Amino acid sequence: MKAIVIQGSFGLGSLAEVTLPDPTPGHGQVVIRMRAASLNYRDLMMIRGQYNPRQPLPLVPFSDGVGEVIEVGPSVTHLKKGDRVCPIFMQAWQDGELDAEKLKTTLGGPLPGVLSELFVTGESGLVKVPAHLSDEEAATLPCAAVTAYNALFCSGRVSPGDTVLVQGTGGVSVFALQFARLAGARVIVTSSSDAKLERAKSLGAWATINYKTTPDWDKKALELTGGAGVDHVVEVGGAGTLARSMRATRIAGTVSVIGVLAGGAQEMSVLPILMKHLRLQGIMVGSRAMFEAMNRAIEAGGLRPVIDEKTFSFGEAREALTYMESGGHFGKIVLRF
Amino acid sequence: MKAIVIQGSFGLGSLAEVTLPDPTPGHGQVVIRMRAASLNYRDLMMIRGQYNPRQPLPLVPFSDGVGEVIEVGPSVTHLKKGDRVCPIFMQAWQDGELDAEKLKTTLGGPLPGVLSELFVTGESGLVKVPAHLSDEEAATLPCAAVTAYNALFCSGRVSPGDTVLVQGTGGVSVFALQFARLAGARVIVTSSSDAKLERAKSLGAWATINYKTTPDWDKKALELTGGAGVDHVVEVGGAGTLARSMRATRIAGTVSVIGVLAGGAQEMSVLPILMKHLRLQGIMVGSRAMFEAMNRAIEAGGLRPVIDEKTFSFGEAREALTYMESGGHFGKIVLRF
Amino acid sequence: MKAIVIQGSFGLGSLAEVTLPDPTPGHGQVVIRMRAASLNYRDLMMIRGQYNPRQPLPLVPFSDGVGEVIEVGPSVTHLKKGDRVCPIFMQAWQDGELDAEKLKTTLGGPLPGVLSELFVTGESGLVKVPAHLSDEEAATLPCAAVTAYNALFCSGRVSPGDTVLVQGTGGVSVFALQFARLAGARVIVTSSSDAKLERAKSLGAWATINYKTTPDWDKKALELTGGAGVDHVVEVGGAGTLARSMRATRIAGTVSVIGVLAGGAQEMSVLPILMKHLRLQGIMVGSRAMFEAMNRAIEAGGLRPVIDEKTFSFGEAREALTYMESGGHFGKIVLRF
Amino acid sequence: MKAIVIQGSFGLGSLAEVTLPDPTPGHGQVVIRMRAASLNYRDLMMIRGQYNPRQPLPLVPFSDGVGEVIEVGPSVTHLKKGDRVCPIFMQAWQDGELDAEKLKTTLGGPLPGVLSELFVTGESGLVKVPAHLSDEEAATLPCAAVTAYNALFCSGRVSPGDTVLVQGTGGVSVFALQFARLAGARVIVTSSSDAKLERAKSLGAWATINYKTTPDWDKKALELTGGAGVDHVVEVGGAGTLARSMRATRIAGTVSVIGVLAGGAQEMSVLPILMKHLRLQGIMVGSRAMFEAMNRAIEAGGLRPVIDEKTFSFGEAREALTYMESGGHFGKIVLRF
Repeated sequence: MKAIVIQGSFGLGSLAEVTLPDPTPGHGQVVIRMRAASLNYRDLMMIRGQYNPRQPLPLVPFSDGVGEVIEVGPSVTHLKKGDRVCPIFMQAWQDGELDAEKLKTTLGGPLPGVLSELFVTGESGLVKVPAHLSDEEAATLPCAAVTAYNALFCSGRVSPGDTVLVQGTGGVSVFALQFARLAGARVIVTSSSDAKLERAKSLGAWATINYKTTPDWDKKALELTGGAGVDHVVEVGGAGTLARSMRATRIAGTVSVIGVLAGGAQEMSVLPILMKHLRLQGIMVGSRAMFEAMNRAIEAGGLRPVIDEKTFSFGEAREALTYMESGGHFGKIVLRF
Repeated sequence: MKAIVIQGSFGLGSLAEVTLPDPTPGHGQVVIRMRAASLNYRDLMMIRGQYNPRQPLPLVPFSDGVGEVIEVGPSVTHLKKGDRVCPIFMQAWQDGELDAEKLKTTLGGPLPGVLSELFVTGESGLVKVPAHLSDEEAATLPCAAVTAYNALFCSGRVSPGDTVLVQGTGGVSVFALQFARLAGARVIVTSSSDAKLERAKSLGAWATINYKTTPDWDKKALELTGGAGVDHVVEVGGAGTLARSMRATRIAGTVSVIGVLAGGAQEMSVLPILMKHLRLQGIMVGSRAMFEAMNRAIEAGGLRPVIDEKTFSFGEAREALTYMESGGHFGKIVLRF
Repeated sequence: MKAIVIQGSFGLGSLAEVTLPDPTPGHGQVVIRMRAASLNYRDLMMIRGQYNPRQPLPLVPFSDGVGEVIEVGPSVTHLKKGDRVCPIFMQAWQDGELDAEKLKTTLGGPLPGVLSELFVTGESGLVKVPAHLSDEEAATLPCAAVTAYNALFCSGRVSPGDTVLVQGTGGVSVFALQFARLAGARVIVTSSSDAKLERAKSLGAWATINYKTTPDWDKKALELTGGAGVDHVVEVGGAGTLARSMRATRIAGTVSVIGVLAGGAQEMSVLPILMKHLRLQGIMVGSRAMFEAMNRAIEAGGLRPVIDEKTFSFGEAREALTYMESGGHFGKIVLRF
Repeated sequence: MKAIVIQGSFGLGSLAEVTLPDPTPGHGQVVIRMRAASLNYRDLMMIRGQYNPRQPLPLVPFSDGVGEVIEVGPSVTHLKKGDRVCPIFMQAWQDGELDAEKLKTTLGGPLPGVLSELFVTGESGLVKVPAHLSDEEAATLPCAAVTAYNALFCSGRVSPGDTVLVQGTGGVSVFALQFARLAGARVIVTSSSDAKLERAKSLGAWATINYKTTPDWDKKALELTGGAGVDHVVEVGGAGTLARSMRATRIAGTVSVIGVLAGGAQEMSVLPILMKHLRLQGIMVGSRAMFEAMNRAIEAGGLRPVIDEKTFSFGEAREALTYMESGGHFGKIVLRF
């Protein structure tokens, strides 16, 4: 089978198409033929060597995709040929709380990712996808959608009538907008682009803030909520946004801390956490059980993931990543195999 | 002021219009001019002497209504003349858990109800209502809406994608349908009337079951959920429905036990509670904090309570109650003052 | 290997010692040499044909025991020879919520039980046991202890200062007494035997009620709690106790409905559930994650399970069951292999 | 009545004894004769002008104390002469979640504190204290004890068998040690003093770390927990400890961010919050309902607050504060009136 690997050294230039032996399913395993994959910022960081510089190479990158079961190993009971499935990001996180052992089973590093024609894994590492989604749409679910779902409904607890502030219009943020709407919440979206804010409005945003023209977006969020602050911030920003997020949050509210973007030491006061009785909750994607619950929500709501207007082919992984670097996308960037 | 009271003995025939002294607001109190009231089955039982045969008479019945603040006593800080407010059903239940003391502060017995031109109470016993609601709509909120909201989102925890089964099309049930929809859940509604089921569909019901033509509605609910059962049943039925509700519920699901209709000893096996790891949760309306959270949900969703097509005047309380007895209504029965 | 099976027909008289082929570990499996087993009332009902009359025979009964790993199959990563382990009651319930599929994987019916010299299962179906426990003590954990732990700390949420009422002095009840004490709760124990109540006191019971001499034990429980009622009842009683349990519970309190003893239809009013905002929570043992959390609690507290003074040998299963039938035991009845 | 006030300007030197008119109880209010007060670091910061430089002066400082009801105003229903009560720190936080309005009702600034012979407030701002406590002991409860209780059992959820790391041996920390022990948790205590660590051991600490001799106390905490990390850190440290606290916490664990000590901007990476799925929970004391629940726990456990060996008189407030500044105390510093 063909696969794309990071080889030799880190960097976008190190991506190379190689031929690997076709996998055969072991005990409890199935082989799937990948049909589409989607990009996360983590993939870009992994390829650049920023996510885990000690990751051994070569590595097949990318954690998110969708495929069709084409071969079933012994003792497989829940999947059969023809099932359309997504791998779960953290293969061993089936249910319950995260732990150190589960944390080591993420795809696209340390485990091989999905940027290959075929992919083999245990059936417990795969989830059937909603029938109404296209392959491109289904490919977006494993990281971004599950992260947003976990933040809002598992680690957090957004209820109808809550106000949720979503930073930007990347993958997690657009899913958060859609899920929060689905759950009856009001959503405020920030972006530096009015065009993107328009699209956010068409997806149901209650209010939008251009943080270029309104750098004090936290004050604007307070104003929009009558001075109280929002109930929940989906914080995906880089250095410097957390302090504003805490200011924009109501007393006893929640800030979901998400995404590798948030990395890097920053000068920060913890005083607001205490004085406002805030909860900061780290979100590291989510479990298989959360994925399945999310799929039920997607089905019930007829929700469709937002795919960027540009899609790419299997061989265009580098172009797709370069496009992601440019930041011009809205929603998820997808590769069609 | 004019008021209607149960006097002499219990029974619909004992309702009489009387003149009572106009109330004056004490410390922390306000006087409101009632504009509309709504009926609950509890009111009917109270008047008949079935709810609490030891309730002293005379008693102004009815717990639910809406009015306008017309006079403000000393030390009132949160309300002012002209505010449109609903009394909360249990005056002392501000927040947190219910207790014995709060339980004694329900309107329409033991405390005087709202079927009077003026109503006086502490400001903490009143809640401002969403501006987009008419008086008739706002009058329906205190019992039925708060009960449904508490069942689904406070004592229970309905998430997007959950399936909720709602029994019938009375006040609590229609609110439960609307709130569950607002939160991204699928709703199954049961009724003995196809016409009512049609209306339920137009309000967003995902599926409907006529329990007259399908007496085994629990089996139908299982079938609709692929054999799994629903996540949550809003159980308002009389004797005999609880066993079916438990059969219709998925393993580890929740049954909200609601409403005075559910009274009366019944032959019942508790084995399903255990064998299916079920939760049965009694719902006794809810707190002021729940009421306020619900109002935020109503505002965010632009939700409008469903009023029965027949409305009544202040003087037609008996006719309204007789109409409720007939069971022909859909949604809430309202009196316009 | 030797095993004891229910063969031919149900009934204590149908227990027979047989020789079965020694098991070999498949993929992900280990073989353990059983050292001790403990009895649950479910075992007695299963053997009598009362638990599941359609259970195919022959069946090795008993779900609870402890053994030593003696052989390890391919791909086993968490266990090694010499590890002392208990099987978990529901082999597939690893974490999260119970579901229909997990429910079918209970030991001692439908899956083969542990009343055999050797026992083979997947490593995920086994849990390492606290080092400070004897084999007899460790053998008591899978059903009774996990059930009590789940009721108090997972499905329920007992906090320091809560009052917990525990019915009787059987396996689950004594564990509930011990765990509730460990968590800083006050425990009221009921029994028909003053001698047993004395032992309950020596285990830390705050108050005791002899329900023979005080048949209105619910009133006594109210009296002991200043009229308020207890926070949590661990309800293991047969027909008729649930109504009393609800009366003994405070408003907004919890009744954990436990154990096959609770079976049988009973005339019961659901009104108290509603009027007191009660929660009735069925408890069907618990997950592997709960078992492991419980073991940490047992280790931290240096807690030792209470074994009845009479212990039995592998060959004396019938005698042990007859002893259980007599109801004379206190704590768990154990078989030493 | 005599009172001590901060007058003129901030600073320990500005404390002065003055005579104020004796208070009379208004509607719903009672007057209590203070018997003892206790110090919190917040009081010291308030007096120095560090907590709120815009606090108007003069101000009676100190939020924590105990007194006896000596006069009861109209409409008071829950308290009577002779009741021994503590004021609650945030007078308006009765139950439920914190909000902006409640936050403005803290004693010792902006509202007058308890360093006066008499104290008047609404009865809802007072809580009866456990009978087995001395006045000195009871005086310690409002801030430090409620903060620890909220962190462990309300905002957090410590269960038997959890490991809790407590920083230092100040008021909150010693209460956290005692409460966590009461709930069956293992407690690790850090301090720079071996003598204090010895005392912590005698109060039930499972392990202790001298952070002077073991500056990498986070590594030691990991080691003590088999590499996993602790379940819960009670973070009261100044700048620089939060990063270590997060390293010492297990994946998906909780850090309670407590105390004004924690103030000041610090260079900090938020990456661990995300990568370890951590929860950081700010704790701003707690509600009246938490206080009452805590009192039940204190009564059930027979727990006694730890008073520093040095106690002071009403007139020695300045000496007591200077002693607190020195950091030599263990547990709470109390003034006996």
